[in-house]
Amino acid sequence: MQTPSAPDLNPVFSYIDTHSQQFLARLIEYLRRPSISAYGEGIDAVAEYIAEEMRHMGLSVRVMPTGGCPMVFGEYHVRPDAPTVLLYGHYDVQPPDPVEAWTSPPFEPAVRDGRIYARGVGDNKGQHFAQLMALETLLACRSTLPCNVKVLLEGEEEIGSPHTPLFIRAHRDELQADLMIVSDGPVHESGRPLMSFGVRGLLSIELHARGANRDLHSGHWGGIAPNPLWTLVHLLATMKNERGEITIDGFYDHVEPLTGQERQALASLPVDVSRVKQSLGIQHFDEPQERGYFERVMAYPTLTINGIHGGYGGPGTKTVLPHEAIAKCDMRLVKAQTADDILAKVKAHVQHHAPSVSVISHGGVDPARTPLDSPFTEPLRQGIIAAQGVAPLLEPTVGASMASSVFTQHLGVQIVYIPYANADEANHAPNENMEISRFLGGIKTGAAMLSFLGVLPGASSTE
Amino acid sequence: MQTPSAPDLNPVFSYIDTHSQQFLARLIEYLRRPSISAYGEGIDAVAEYIAEEMRHMGLSVRVMPTGGCPMVFGEYHVRPDAPTVLLYGHYDVQPPDPVEAWTSPPFEPAVRDGRIYARGVGDNKGQHFAQLMALETLLACRSTLPCNVKVLLEGEEEIGSPHTPLFIRAHRDELQADLMIVSDGPVHESGRPLMSFGVRGLLSIELHARGANRDLHSGHWGGIAPNPLWTLVHLLATMKNERGEITIDGFYDHVEPLTGQERQALASLPVDVSRVKQSLGIQHFDEPQERGYFERVMAYPTLTINGIHGGYGGPGTKTVLPHEAIAKCDMRLVKAQTADDILAKVKAHVQHHAPSVSVISHGGVDPARTPLDSPFTEPLRQGIIAAQGVAPLLEPTVGASMASSVFTQHLGVQIVYIPYANADEANHAPNENMEISRFLGGIKTGAAMLSFLGVLPGASSTE
Repeated sequence: MQTPSAPDLNPVFSYIDTHSQQFLARLIEYLRRPSISAYGEGIDAVAEYIAEEMRHMGLSVRVMPTGGCPMVFGEYHVRPDAPTVLLYGHYDVQPPDPVEAWTSPPFEPAVRDGRIYARGVGDNKGQHFAQLMALETLLACRSTLPCNVKVLLEGEEEIGSPHTPLFIRAHRDELQADLMIVSDGPVHESGRPLMSFGVRGLLSIELHARGANRDLHSGHWGGIAPNPLWTLVHLLATMKNERGEITIDGFYDHVEPLTGQERQALASLPVDVSRVKQSLGIQHFDEPQERGYFERVMAYPTLTINGIHGGYGGPGTKTVLPHEAIAKCDMRLVKAQTADDILAKVKAHVQHHAPSVSVISHGGVDPARTPLDSPFTEPLRQGIIAAQGVAPLLEPTVGASMASSVFTQHLGVQIVYIPYANADEANHAPNENMEISRFLGGIKTGAAMLSFLGVLPGASSTE
Repeated sequence: MQTPSAPDLNPVFSYIDTHSQQFLARLIEYLRRPSISAYGEGIDAVAEYIAEEMRHMGLSVRVMPTGGCPMVFGEYHVRPDAPTVLLYGHYDVQPPDPVEAWTSPPFEPAVRDGRIYARGVGDNKGQHFAQLMALETLLACRSTLPCNVKVLLEGEEEIGSPHTPLFIRAHRDELQADLMIVSDGPVHESGRPLMSFGVRGLLSIELHARGANRDLHSGHWGGIAPNPLWTLVHLLATMKNERGEITIDGFYDHVEPLTGQERQALASLPVDVSRVKQSLGIQHFDEPQERGYFERVMAYPTLTINGIHGGYGGPGTKTVLPHEAIAKCDMRLVKAQTADDILAKVKAHVQHHAPSVSVISHGGVDPARTPLDSPFTEPLRQGIIAAQGVAPLLEPTVGASMASSVFTQHLGVQIVYIPYANADEANHAPNENMEISRFLGGIKTGAAMLSFLGVLPGASSTE
């Protein structure tokens, strides 16, 4: 762990305070412009709009085609021995439906009670615009940046980033960086800032079981024709037992246990388990009972049945012996499992236990986890403290999955997730909003983090 | 086994041959009259119509209310020491939909290629009308019947006989009989006549599993909230194993193995197992493999999952952790299991293995099986041989279930199923039909069976 000498942030914070109304007005201009990747609406125009903003502040900017929505890529190179930070965001937004549920129209930003209401303000325009305003502030105050900066704004995050992996692989040299900062999603529900160091991987599969060539009468054919629902039940029961252990052969082979530091971080995360149980309406957590709350989503992989459907599901009864049944499952993977390896293990397991069942893969992403003792942890943490006056909570990983491994594997970059939006941002929902104080705090945080990274001694040695 | 002296059936068969066109014309008159219990259409009028036919031939007849569609009950008492036969049928029919799929209108009976086409001709008007014409023939030829006869024609068989059990209990004295003959359903697909001696019982249940109070994101909550689909999978896996054995505690306690005679009867039943597999599109029968074909449906109970539904079932994937799931199951029961006892065992099993799962019963019926060595077997068999010139196949039981136990338990009667309809009768479907030769053969069979029962020595001792 390095102990960087603290940069003087007073002029920077003062500049941000002075220009807060102007930053807000410019965010509102940005939010007025729909960029709905699901419909292709406004995408190209908004990509050009934000590229122009970035050029205006002095970045070298390109709008790069992907086969889908374009990427906006900006750079500011300071010197070869400074660390290079890649700031990631996405300029596309969710569709605003149901529009009638909005208090003010989704693309006419409105300020009420200290919040901006508009589609995309939290997810993700308000967050990456804060990063951009941090760069503008630093350039205005110092005529340079504390470190090398790259900015990548994606245009199809809300439709699953179909062209992103190929784009990253094709542009790995230009995108090369030491650290990637992703500001997306909400801060902790307590309001405290968060630093998250990883995501779980994901593998989604379907199991298809077939019996006879048609549905049959259970009285005439029960006991004669195999029942695909029983096939699925018996197969699934071999994949995870009642004690909550996943029993697919070799499933846990590459699971890396949490480090002592990670366990310590988990122990410091606040949670009121009885309140969680009450809110979910459950008496007990899932098996196994002895796992700690955060261990459940951060330290262990899961095998979730997303759905089983086969046979009769209407009211009352139907004495049918169904002829096909489907189970959909997802697996959340933890470091160093990989989606490809786990898929191969699932297929081998199914081939062994129920060879007539077919396995269909819906693809996956690998888990990614940046070590808590990364040289970047402390400067980022100091930046957050300097800007917000409170230390962030450290999450070794989050339960959900993102295509982070595309970046970690192809760019060799470390990723840290530092969200700026309030916990009740209502992303993907009507009345999406962001607290103005969090937007302005995000600008300060961005500027402070880069400033602390800029005084990190020997950071370039990690390249 | 008794060896009855053969009655002289020549005058009876000759009468039937002479009157065949008249019997056919009267059946057609009966078929013209819709009696659709599902809609309540024509029920009362048809009950009166058939009651009047029965009165006309000399039976003492009552149309008896049930709370639903009325029962038509006729009697002809000969002498106290003769056996009493209860002939069961149902005068209601299935709805004719889809009417446009019929070659000739469903209630305008048409004769084509030796068959009568009309809704209800096979199921069940043509079959019980043949029994009535047998009585009329015997009364015309001999001015009396060979034994005591009761006729019960139900009016809501096609809607699940909701009022029948109560009616039977309320009228047990009037309905008392030694033997009940049910002529419904088809003969063997080879065309050979059948005698079936029992039905499997049925118990239908639903298992409801609940997790959290709403569907959850599998990444954020997988590993924390219990998954009701896993609960069902693990519970069901404790109820039946991969070897096909039902593992509900005590499930097989009251299963009576087939007798030697029943096993012999099974061995004589014709089946081409490779043709059956081909027709079902399966490589192997259900587990366990070592069971004989007919044993599977006749000797053993089943536990069939009729349907499982929970979570996502649409295209692609959804990373959802569902909050509820339902499995619907039916159990086919064999003698001497009872639906009440098995329901209690299922509830105890679920309480033990998954106390959070609720069990909902959709009711059941008990199995019924008349011993193959019943004193009535041989006279009935001789009657079929005399009328049709071919020995019937003997089925100890059929796989399906009927409310037969209502009769066997409340009336203490033995039931034998002797169908008259052709195997391709298309009951419940468009173009329902019955071969005219089978209708006329049914009249002869009915007359011959009663004649053989009438010379059964000491038959009254079974009362």
